Amino acid sequence: MNPDLLKRYLKHNQSFSDEALEHIIVQFKPMIFKKNAILLSKNEVANKIYFVCNGCVRTYYLTERGHEKTRFIAFEGQVAGSLNSFISGQPSLEFVATLEDSELLYITRSIFYKLVKDFPEWEQFYLKLLESAYNYQNKKIGEMVMLSAIERYQLLLKENPEYIKRLSNKILASYLDISQETLSRLKSK
Amino acid sequence: MNPDLLKRYLKHNQSFSDEALEHIIVQFKPMIFKKNAILLSKNEVANKIYFVCNGCVRTYYLTERGHEKTRFIAFEGQVAGSLNSFISGQPSLEFVATLEDSELLYITRSIFYKLVKDFPEWEQFYLKLLESAYNYQNKKIGEMVMLSAIERYQLLLKENPEYIKRLSNKILASYLDISQETLSRLKSK
Repeated sequence: MNPDLLKRYLKHNQSFSDEALEHIIVQFKPMIFKKNAILLSKNEVANKIYFVCNGCVRTYYLTERGHEKTRFIAFEGQVAGSLNSFISGQPSLEFVATLEDSELLYITRSIFYKLVKDFPEWEQFYLKLLESAYNYQNKKIGEMVMLSAIERYQLLLKENPEYIKRLSNKILASYLDISQETLSRLKSK
Repeated sequence: MNPDLLKRYLKHNQSFSDEALEHIIVQFKPMIFKKNAILLSKNEVANKIYFVCNGCVRTYYLTERGHEKTRFIAFEGQVAGSLNSFISGQPSLEFVATLEDSELLYITRSIFYKLVKDFPEWEQFYLKLLESAYNYQNKKIGEMVMLSAIERYQLLLKENPEYIKRLSNKILASYLDISQETLSRLKSK
């Protein structure tokens, strides 16, 4: 698996010396998954975090009644996993699974945090990752409490039209937290 | 205003040299507010972040229909404000206001991020603040999508009983995202 996409992603977010970047890149190992493979189950500790080279990965809750609630979807060039459990070392409340056949690079939790200690540049990259993950979450909470179903759909259509092209109605409905019937009605308008 | 509570809070979360801690502490300035004072309005940039010495401060959304949705409440010894706007420098989607007469210490955005550059210990403190804020948000999203009104109330009663003693029914209902009628019914059980 070619790590060029990961290299570009890291350099885009943080300046690294060539030595540091080479040292960091080789800590990532490739894994290939079929569609719908479970990477992390509820109550497991997230001992890995992933970078998507090809395919896509979602993070979701499963309610007691068996409803899936998709919190985040990572496409090519994005970080995937249960960041909450990865940070805390506590069991995850979420599942992580592929939505398509996927080529991923992963890094283990212990190596990741050793790099945070050893490389100031990696610590700064981690800080930016946290800032961006926090802001994404905050935006998502704001949308959940402020917007109606149709407004959430229209916003997604404007900001991330590829979600609507690429994801099944079932996943899209669970991401927008609306029923599939409501989604079909919105799509047909 | 005595900065001892802030000192203890910082030292509890991060080890600082005495010199660094003294330099950092004096960057915080005191402000005293009456109950229900607005510290930040929607569409303003959060140029300050606060530490609560006395009183309490909430961060909330106001929907187009005029409903308040409380996202976070900071009591004594906690950081308050719109972290999202503080990080991004973009206009806030949230309001920040006192819920009681409050004594606060604030630091400006420009000084805060200068300290991040100048003091590795402050950068590490900021990283831990982000980790904890991210995990709080994630827990909140999980509760919103996974738990019923009664389950959210019971969890708060178990984890943060002081919220129920100290906050008005109006604020508590807006924090739990339930109606005041539902809250009264849950409380009487």
